[in-house]
Amino acid sequence: MRRALALAASPDARTGPNPRVGCVLLSPDGEVVGEGYHHGAGHPHAEVEALRAAGGRARGATAVVTLEPCDHTGRTGPCSVALLDAGVARVVHGQSDPNPVAAGGARRLAGAGVEVVGGVLAAEAEALNPAWTFAVTHGRPFVTWKAASTLDGRVAAADGSSRWITSAEARAEVHRFRAGVDAVIVGIGTVLEDDPHLAVRRGGVVLPREVQPLRVVVGRRDIPERARVLDGAAPTLQVREHDPATVLVALRDLDVQHVLLEGGPTLAAAFVRAGLVDAVRWYVAPALLGAGASALGSAGINSIADALRLRITEVARVGDDVRIDARVLRAEED
Amino acid sequence: MRRALALAASPDARTGPNPRVGCVLLSPDGEVVGEGYHHGAGHPHAEVEALRAAGGRARGATAVVTLEPCDHTGRTGPCSVALLDAGVARVVHGQSDPNPVAAGGARRLAGAGVEVVGGVLAAEAEALNPAWTFAVTHGRPFVTWKAASTLDGRVAAADGSSRWITSAEARAEVHRFRAGVDAVIVGIGTVLEDDPHLAVRRGGVVLPREVQPLRVVVGRRDIPERARVLDGAAPTLQVREHDPATVLVALRDLDVQHVLLEGGPTLAAAFVRAGLVDAVRWYVAPALLGAGASALGSAGINSIADALRLRITEVARVGDDVRIDARVLRAEED
Repeated sequence: MRRALALAASPDARTGPNPRVGCVLLSPDGEVVGEGYHHGAGHPHAEVEALRAAGGRARGATAVVTLEPCDHTGRTGPCSVALLDAGVARVVHGQSDPNPVAAGGARRLAGAGVEVVGGVLAAEAEALNPAWTFAVTHGRPFVTWKAASTLDGRVAAADGSSRWITSAEARAEVHRFRAGVDAVIVGIGTVLEDDPHLAVRRGGVVLPREVQPLRVVVGRRDIPERARVLDGAAPTLQVREHDPATVLVALRDLDVQHVLLEGGPTLAAAFVRAGLVDAVRWYVAPALLGAGASALGSAGINSIADALRLRITEVARVGDDVRIDARVLRAEED
Repeated sequence: MRRALALAASPDARTGPNPRVGCVLLSPDGEVVGEGYHHGAGHPHAEVEALRAAGGRARGATAVVTLEPCDHTGRTGPCSVALLDAGVARVVHGQSDPNPVAAGGARRLAGAGVEVVGGVLAAEAEALNPAWTFAVTHGRPFVTWKAASTLDGRVAAADGSSRWITSAEARAEVHRFRAGVDAVIVGIGTVLEDDPHLAVRRGGVVLPREVQPLRVVVGRRDIPERARVLDGAAPTLQVREHDPATVLVALRDLDVQHVLLEGGPTLAAAFVRAGLVDAVRWYVAPALLGAGASALGSAGINSIADALRLRITEVARVGDDVRIDARVLRAEED
């Protein structure tokens, strides 16, 4: 399984919206007869790649795979059937398939007389695809809210100025984080006021459009023609809708699994109020303002008992600032 | 000098408002003939203690002392004169005396033909008495502002509730920090609203009155007779005055060198506006409120360019929270 996990994590596995999966086929005497991993949408699944490598030696073999084999015909046929057709005798898998559409592979295999063992190093397997797992399980993308405030929680001064609260190092780190998400969300208000670009830069250079996350502008007002988000450096989508749940469903339908919420206090409040913030990445600058907009607008929380509580996952010093990463605590996880 | 520094830092040196000082007397061939350190107000200074230990062997000796010998008759005579009377030939000192009233010892000694070398391990010597040095240099106590807020900078919810934003571990650490300052300041508004006790507890038990910092209540309205700050567990002072500079002068005259500002947003804003916050100890709880009082009220800052900037000195996780210690940047230090 460790080998299968390593295969899944191969650096050239560009899976896009699909999960990273690795598979190792072992002969009855423990010899590796085939290996494979998923290279991305439209490519064969890891199991199929391993079966092709093994050829006839797959008969009677054990398939070790990081994710429960799918039972679904998408752009490729179901892996469960491919494993049965190849005469595999035993399947050991890590994470169970959380996808109700694709699940059922283990059941079909067991029903056909194959010995199936699940849950082996399942946590490690799941850690290969946290956003995919979340999106498949919850039917919507995982939402990380990024904020950059002073110690006293301000994101702008009394006169509206907000550049820059945090250090250059913190802003560079935001670019690196953006590069790892599928979409970046701001409100139309932020576009009209600040005209942000939202494209990922590295060393000051805008990365190619193919690796840019989708720029999402939420709200009914038109984006000005000359707005920087319309410059073509990255794809841009306007969702003419305020309800965060509707926005996230629209993004799910575009295979978006992880979104970075970079909007202002009002948009953040709408997501918090809707229970649709899953994590925060918060940059605290060692500065005090005493006036100006607070990071979070009114989210319907009236007392300390009703505060939205989080659990800190990491604290780091970045440039002159502090980064606090935290997960929102939910009843299901308490 | 390292030995003199170690003597000054002796755990039984309870110097109160006086600086910690250590002294070693060396014979011309390098033998230690006397040692001493200051035990606190009313006790002999370190030099005098070392001279007593050395007796006649002080003649021709070198005195190594962490602080420039005083030239001032207070509760004890000037050390400069005592060193001259004993026939010391050479004086090596660390920190120069920042106190205009007591300074001049080196000059008097040199004028009388004693060889004087100053500034040896001066930074280490100064670090023995940071608050004393600050208070003597600036003519007022060092002010640390303690705040405990949510990520979005709130210190209370919309309904006014504020217990508790931070974890028990953070609150216990505040008690330990309080134990090391000379005074704790709150506004009368906080006393009327929250009725804080402000006495130092350890393991839930209130420490003896003798080791408690002074509880200072700022403002003109009367403290209610049954207020917890009047319970006698610690000394309490009301300063019927709003101006922070006046408050600090009053405290300086009581030999207060380090104050912890624990007031609410309004009192903190008055100190920030007056340029009288030197450091912050900020507890950030991983929680979001979106409404309620922000940690810092209006301090006359209008734009990002005018933000009060600080330099982070330490970041630590305390219980569920993050503590950020930072020093206010001043033009003189930039």
